[in-house]
Amino acid sequence: MEKTITLEKLAALVDGEVVGDAAVEITGFGPLDGAGPGDISFVVKARYAGQAAESAAAAFLIKKDMEIKGRTVVKVDDPYFAAAVIQNHFLQQPFAARGIHETAVIGNDCMIAEEITIGAQAVLGARVKIGAQTEIYPGVVIGDDVVIGEGCCIRANVVVEDGCELGSRVTIHANSVIGSDGYGYATDRYGNHVKRPQLGIVRIGDEVEIGSNTSVDRAAFGVTWIKSGTKIDNLVQIAHNCEIGENSLIVSQVGIAGSTTLERSVVLGGKAALAGHQRIGAGTMVAGGAGVHGDHPPGSRLAGVPAFNAKTWFRAAALFQKLPELFRDVRKIKKMLADRAEKAGSPDSN
Amino acid sequence: MEKTITLEKLAALVDGEVVGDAAVEITGFGPLDGAGPGDISFVVKARYAGQAAESAAAAFLIKKDMEIKGRTVVKVDDPYFAAAVIQNHFLQQPFAARGIHETAVIGNDCMIAEEITIGAQAVLGARVKIGAQTEIYPGVVIGDDVVIGEGCCIRANVVVEDGCELGSRVTIHANSVIGSDGYGYATDRYGNHVKRPQLGIVRIGDEVEIGSNTSVDRAAFGVTWIKSGTKIDNLVQIAHNCEIGENSLIVSQVGIAGSTTLERSVVLGGKAALAGHQRIGAGTMVAGGAGVHGDHPPGSRLAGVPAFNAKTWFRAAALFQKLPELFRDVRKIKKMLADRAEKAGSPDSN
Amino acid sequence: MEKTITLEKLAALVDGEVVGDAAVEITGFGPLDGAGPGDISFVVKARYAGQAAESAAAAFLIKKDMEIKGRTVVKVDDPYFAAAVIQNHFLQQPFAARGIHETAVIGNDCMIAEEITIGAQAVLGARVKIGAQTEIYPGVVIGDDVVIGEGCCIRANVVVEDGCELGSRVTIHANSVIGSDGYGYATDRYGNHVKRPQLGIVRIGDEVEIGSNTSVDRAAFGVTWIKSGTKIDNLVQIAHNCEIGENSLIVSQVGIAGSTTLERSVVLGGKAALAGHQRIGAGTMVAGGAGVHGDHPPGSRLAGVPAFNAKTWFRAAALFQKLPELFRDVRKIKKMLADRAEKAGSPDSN
Repeated sequence: MEKTITLEKLAALVDGEVVGDAAVEITGFGPLDGAGPGDISFVVKARYAGQAAESAAAAFLIKKDMEIKGRTVVKVDDPYFAAAVIQNHFLQQPFAARGIHETAVIGNDCMIAEEITIGAQAVLGARVKIGAQTEIYPGVVIGDDVVIGEGCCIRANVVVEDGCELGSRVTIHANSVIGSDGYGYATDRYGNHVKRPQLGIVRIGDEVEIGSNTSVDRAAFGVTWIKSGTKIDNLVQIAHNCEIGENSLIVSQVGIAGSTTLERSVVLGGKAALAGHQRIGAGTMVAGGAGVHGDHPPGSRLAGVPAFNAKTWFRAAALFQKLPELFRDVRKIKKMLADRAEKAGSPDSN
Repeated sequence: MEKTITLEKLAALVDGEVVGDAAVEITGFGPLDGAGPGDISFVVKARYAGQAAESAAAAFLIKKDMEIKGRTVVKVDDPYFAAAVIQNHFLQQPFAARGIHETAVIGNDCMIAEEITIGAQAVLGARVKIGAQTEIYPGVVIGDDVVIGEGCCIRANVVVEDGCELGSRVTIHANSVIGSDGYGYATDRYGNHVKRPQLGIVRIGDEVEIGSNTSVDRAAFGVTWIKSGTKIDNLVQIAHNCEIGENSLIVSQVGIAGSTTLERSVVLGGKAALAGHQRIGAGTMVAGGAGVHGDHPPGSRLAGVPAFNAKTWFRAAALFQKLPELFRDVRKIKKMLADRAEKAGSPDSN
Repeated sequence: MEKTITLEKLAALVDGEVVGDAAVEITGFGPLDGAGPGDISFVVKARYAGQAAESAAAAFLIKKDMEIKGRTVVKVDDPYFAAAVIQNHFLQQPFAARGIHETAVIGNDCMIAEEITIGAQAVLGARVKIGAQTEIYPGVVIGDDVVIGEGCCIRANVVVEDGCELGSRVTIHANSVIGSDGYGYATDRYGNHVKRPQLGIVRIGDEVEIGSNTSVDRAAFGVTWIKSGTKIDNLVQIAHNCEIGENSLIVSQVGIAGSTTLERSVVLGGKAALAGHQRIGAGTMVAGGAGVHGDHPPGSRLAGVPAFNAKTWFRAAALFQKLPELFRDVRKIKKMLADRAEKAGSPDSN
């Protein structure tokens, strides 16, 4: 369903200022090399201005200090962000409820909103509650007593275990698991491991998105908590009793051990590893592959294994490949000093 | 269903000695900050004794050399272990067989115990054997000729491929895969890879627990073997023909390459990587993130990439961030020596 | 179904030269320690010649410069590769179409070849096209408008999202996800993340094999492309807009960030990480655990984090554990020079 909107109204969505024909009608959004004549596009860097000048697009989102000769533009603070808002505007569709598929299996005493889509072969346990405009994809398995808010999207073959609570507008991608048991054992004197029961749940805030093949473990007691606005990539491990602050970004293959707390707006690069029982301050950024131990204050920048200040790490890491040279130099210096000491008959050579 | 047991009988379960009222009736287990008046709790460290003194709990599991003033306690060797045993005692429920769900699909010639639960949409191949008191969750797919013992718990959307054998009291968490093909190819002179058929199976011993989203590959020939009592976390990769010794602990996101053998009671920290065709001695502990090559004797302590003695690694790793300083020092020394040599007209400067 | 073939004909399949009785009939393939009297086996290294001499096998694939006394052999360039070809010859079976299982759910307007197997509880969206001799296992979920070629094998509980395109003879192992959303957000001044829509697809070439629990994300715009002949292991992450060249090998737990291009025949060792927006030249080999940034020319050999020349890395890494010693040496040298300078009243000590 095509949408048409004047450039003036589009600009208002992103606090933008039109330079050129504000009455032009825009029908879609496209990247620079794919935009058609009714589309709006965007330019993040000045060096793409030339490419933009030749694009078929009707208008461009650009930075306030930029221009594109002879073309209609919308000046904004952050063209990248404005592009996301406008692209979402064109893609937004009213929710089309398709009801509960005849092959889905619904447990006793569930409370499911009327405006719902539950796909083929999905299985819901007992006493599950699901809000309006949520879509449960085929093959999803939802345990007993799970609560899912409004406008959620639970994609194919996801598993949400007993008792977990999801907020509204949560998206979970295919084959992820919410609420598997935490990894906790006590070991006897013979080396046998006895399972520590995992009785807590996972709670997920609003607007959280979780990638595919990711695991979020339930708490031993209490709650493993992913707070609102956080975005988690594929193949991530969140252990029991973690608390992930609002608006954090957790990139693919990160692993976070048990009972670690991230304050808000923490960014963890791909494959970063966090030890258990630590507190990572708000706004901390951890480089990909880092291995973080201990508490870190807000705004930390960390890299390396074990992780320390990222700037220092980059300097140290750049020198690593010169280690063979350094060892050679020190060997030579030792020899030279020993030779001189010998010549001088000095006792301080070693 | 609430259970009531005297403290005396509880203490007997964990070889404990009651100090205080052994006749008090205990109805549950709780953590220090959550225990109610009928509960038993536990104290691992002396510094929590104060918190315990104010807890509502009826009694506490403590170490033999500890006490909590004015409170009833059970003295044991290891309160952490005793707590797990007692918590499991209260949680244990008789198996409630719910039979085979009407939407499950069962292949020909299966032998399934009567006391069984097979969930909705589960699919069993031909000639599958399953022991009593096992629960197969919804969406599980079991291949032909699979054997599963008694008291197992195969959670939602797990896949167990053809011919694999599981012992008794095995738990596999959601979306894990047992018996996917090993990764083996032969490459022709043009760079095309021809698959080496993967004809073996996976065998899993008793009391093994495997986390969610974990992959255990079948052997090329023979068996990939996870021995009894081993506990594996989420998102772990076990390649073809590995043999994992009894009572090992394999933490999240570990990867073990093909044909590697772990002897018993090996502990692998999160994200550790083991190369193929090696033997890791009994009781070895590998730090998180380590990359292990070559054989290692029993009792090894390993860290780093490539891994070596953990103690040495911790020392070396602590110095890593001082590399820039060290390079600066050596540069200065070289310059100083060169200057002196020049002054002295000596030929040994370089 | 047993196959019988003369050694002469078998040898012709692998450009081999028979030394001994070419008319002997071969009925199967086995490893040295498992081959029976009708089997052919193979010897990769001369040191196994003795074991071969005592094997029950009827014949052996060996290198051209080897021999096994008194035994019939087939001399080939690469016995390992020839073994794979011959083993596959014996295992190959005609496709046995079992049709569409009655519990499978098929969307509107699908075009499915007649010679097909679609397993129990599988779900296909609308307008899906599937070629002949493809097998869809139980629990698989296929989105709308997906195209799957001939002779593919999509194993249990795999999810292929809307619009993705698979070539012919593609195998995807259990619980993998093809076409989950790429990880892309734009962040406003308050730290809220707005999703950048992910509108592209995943395209997979012929003869690609993908392991279990692997995630391949769809492009933001355009195509994430896995080209023909590439083999991907378990638990791998391929981000949006990556392009993976023909005949590449990507070992378990590798992660590749967005918009990175691998040219043909690249090999990535287990757990290697590649940053986004880079180009890795043809035939490059990356060691396990490496963290690769920036473009690299064809034939590169990389190791380390951040990765550099592998040979240099191995030398530097071997020295890493001697860092404590090196720091001690430099400290001593500094002290010695300071002492001498003091004695000499020289101003150059520091």
